[in-house]
Amino acid sequence: MAGKNTGFSQRSAWAADQPIGFLMQKALEHPQLVSLAAGFVDQASLPVEAARSAALSVLEDPALARAALQYGTTAGDPVLRTQILERLRGLDGPAAPGAKLDQVLLTAGSNQVLWLLADALLNPGDVVLCDAPTYFVFMGIVRNMGARAVGIASDVHGMRPEALEAELEAFAARGELDRVKAIYVVSYFDNPRSVSLSAARRAQVCELAKRYSRQRTLYVIEDAAYRELRFRGADEKSVRSYDREGTHVIYAGTFSKSFSPGVRVGYGVLPESLVTPLLELKGNLDFGSPHFNQRMISKVMERGLYGPHVQTLCDVYERKQRAMLHALDAELGTPGLARYLRPDGGLYVWVELLGGVDTGSRSKLFANAIEEGVLYVPGEYCFTDLTSAPRSFMRLSFGVQSEPRIAEGVQRLACAIKRARD
Amino acid sequence: MAGKNTGFSQRSAWAADQPIGFLMQKALEHPQLVSLAAGFVDQASLPVEAARSAALSVLEDPALARAALQYGTTAGDPVLRTQILERLRGLDGPAAPGAKLDQVLLTAGSNQVLWLLADALLNPGDVVLCDAPTYFVFMGIVRNMGARAVGIASDVHGMRPEALEAELEAFAARGELDRVKAIYVVSYFDNPRSVSLSAARRAQVCELAKRYSRQRTLYVIEDAAYRELRFRGADEKSVRSYDREGTHVIYAGTFSKSFSPGVRVGYGVLPESLVTPLLELKGNLDFGSPHFNQRMISKVMERGLYGPHVQTLCDVYERKQRAMLHALDAELGTPGLARYLRPDGGLYVWVELLGGVDTGSRSKLFANAIEEGVLYVPGEYCFTDLTSAPRSFMRLSFGVQSEPRIAEGVQRLACAIKRARD
Repeated sequence: MAGKNTGFSQRSAWAADQPIGFLMQKALEHPQLVSLAAGFVDQASLPVEAARSAALSVLEDPALARAALQYGTTAGDPVLRTQILERLRGLDGPAAPGAKLDQVLLTAGSNQVLWLLADALLNPGDVVLCDAPTYFVFMGIVRNMGARAVGIASDVHGMRPEALEAELEAFAARGELDRVKAIYVVSYFDNPRSVSLSAARRAQVCELAKRYSRQRTLYVIEDAAYRELRFRGADEKSVRSYDREGTHVIYAGTFSKSFSPGVRVGYGVLPESLVTPLLELKGNLDFGSPHFNQRMISKVMERGLYGPHVQTLCDVYERKQRAMLHALDAELGTPGLARYLRPDGGLYVWVELLGGVDTGSRSKLFANAIEEGVLYVPGEYCFTDLTSAPRSFMRLSFGVQSEPRIAEGVQRLACAIKRARD
Repeated sequence: MAGKNTGFSQRSAWAADQPIGFLMQKALEHPQLVSLAAGFVDQASLPVEAARSAALSVLEDPALARAALQYGTTAGDPVLRTQILERLRGLDGPAAPGAKLDQVLLTAGSNQVLWLLADALLNPGDVVLCDAPTYFVFMGIVRNMGARAVGIASDVHGMRPEALEAELEAFAARGELDRVKAIYVVSYFDNPRSVSLSAARRAQVCELAKRYSRQRTLYVIEDAAYRELRFRGADEKSVRSYDREGTHVIYAGTFSKSFSPGVRVGYGVLPESLVTPLLELKGNLDFGSPHFNQRMISKVMERGLYGPHVQTLCDVYERKQRAMLHALDAELGTPGLARYLRPDGGLYVWVELLGGVDTGSRSKLFANAIEEGVLYVPGEYCFTDLTSAPRSFMRLSFGVQSEPRIAEGVQRLACAIKRARD
């Protein structure tokens, strides 16, 4: 819509018409909807006491308070960056590649890391390889740069390495390998499926990125936003931990899901080659995210408030996931209606409707759902090509709604599905 | 440096080598320097008590606290946006064009408004007209888009309308008027000179923007970051207030200079045509700046803490400006050494050295200054073309240093100047 006679930029046109705008519009038009679409976090467990204690602690010593209220650096607070590296070392173990302080960049959520990477790497016409399906906002970022996301077949163990290799080979055979700038994976409990990349595949994705780094580096963008929202099982080592030299994988993390999206501190752990390019872009953009928030999160860590809060969250989300799965079993459990995963963490259930029911944004089902008072994310949005995307999936989020509202939402959805099948 | 074999984007190359990086490097290499270069705000007057009271107030009611810790909207907190519109109405009077809530966008400092506007408007090769000299970070943003800033002659009353008109005519005569996307003015106590655009010229700049909006809108970006830092005289109506239909002028404001850069809340008041393009870009970038910070600033306003703090700041900066001017008079007052303005507000003194002393970043003076232990911003950085920029100016900031350090810094600078003249 933008871009022609308006005088707006080409990038402005590329930024237009994101699915999230459509979904938010629907939510605004129908405020009584039970939104199983919104990616918000659980409201009741937001850390009021920890935030209060951290804010007071930042502001209690006048000299330190003033430092927090002053500009920080473009890269962000060094104390918090050190704490992040320590926590990562704790999770990934001593064998993971080290990182110097200057390889950590603090941002406005991990989304800004993704944006900065896309802007630093992608020229119009360039390519990022990602799971099919993947995080739709990231695909919007790629389009915003005039670049293209190409979907790679992905199953319950994440991206399939043989499909990734075949795609890389195809680009190489066409002489277009240098257009492929990055492989994007949401490595833990991904968006939209809550699927995690298996350990074996982590190593393989890393190895493929290195092998196909010919004229230049093929980076792996590891989006670890949901890593700490694990209800069951042991943490996996990051994809980054398989990158022995620390040259190919960018690790993007955030305190939004695991602490507070309103405080909004995210971070990237960068290969050295990317430090200067990202700092230069961020210098122009906002010369550093709010220092006060970085000091708050640092205090949360320092006072030992972070780990226990993450544990609380995991308990909360496990219950909410159980509520959603229970409702799905009750409402759609009849053989032949739907199929869905039971992941070990994350915020989403990825539902496949059987029997040819169309879940698309223009479908009878989507309209029915709004009439019934429930909103979901049409699965088609999570594929790189809307026209060829399967229209049998939907992403349901149990993040923001209470357990009774989750049950209510699923009931309404089941009514909509049954009407659509009639 | 980036962009060739590295696999980085063209924009990454355009973002490289900003002067601020060079200056920060110098400051890091010589930590004992008295920096009269840094654009930081006064440390001692940072609002510790107001911030503490606001943070506690945001967090005291659990339901409201949770709302603040949750995601907000991409546009930002509606209560704060309403307060901003009310304050602007108070400053500009009822005759200024109205704005609806959705025309206010909250950002990470006003710098992000500038960045979003540049990204929404500028294709590679496009042009923004700005004062010569102007805010060097903004020129970096323009370069980051592959676009070009063109300097317009400017005197103690700001941009000269006849020079602006002549430049617009020249573009029109070459058939290139549609490449000129915006006129950028720091309308109050500008960076680097602390010069304000006169009332008569505000009307003229607005009229010229409308007259030369032929195939498409020629916008005026009004950067009002320093508006409230006025020590003497009455506030002027904004450039926006001369844009009766509210269609051509974007007003960019911030609480960074007038409250806290560490909390970092800025805003744009946008013509309706720009609302959707900017929201779409910001949606990709970070889907909204931290909600918690917006609620904090809103509480500061609600509790009546903002106005008194601004008054305190004006007193502080008036004293610091006086200290700097006093030191300059004492050290460089000898006729023939330097010339400088005595502005009614802002954070800078713009000094012209007489007698052919070169102030450039590679000059003997700049090296001497670092040896003497003082850093300034070479005036050349504030002009659009480094090679043709005059090298007789420097920007001195009295924002961050204490009064004794300001005096010390100016003394060191005078030593460096005297050595450079020998």
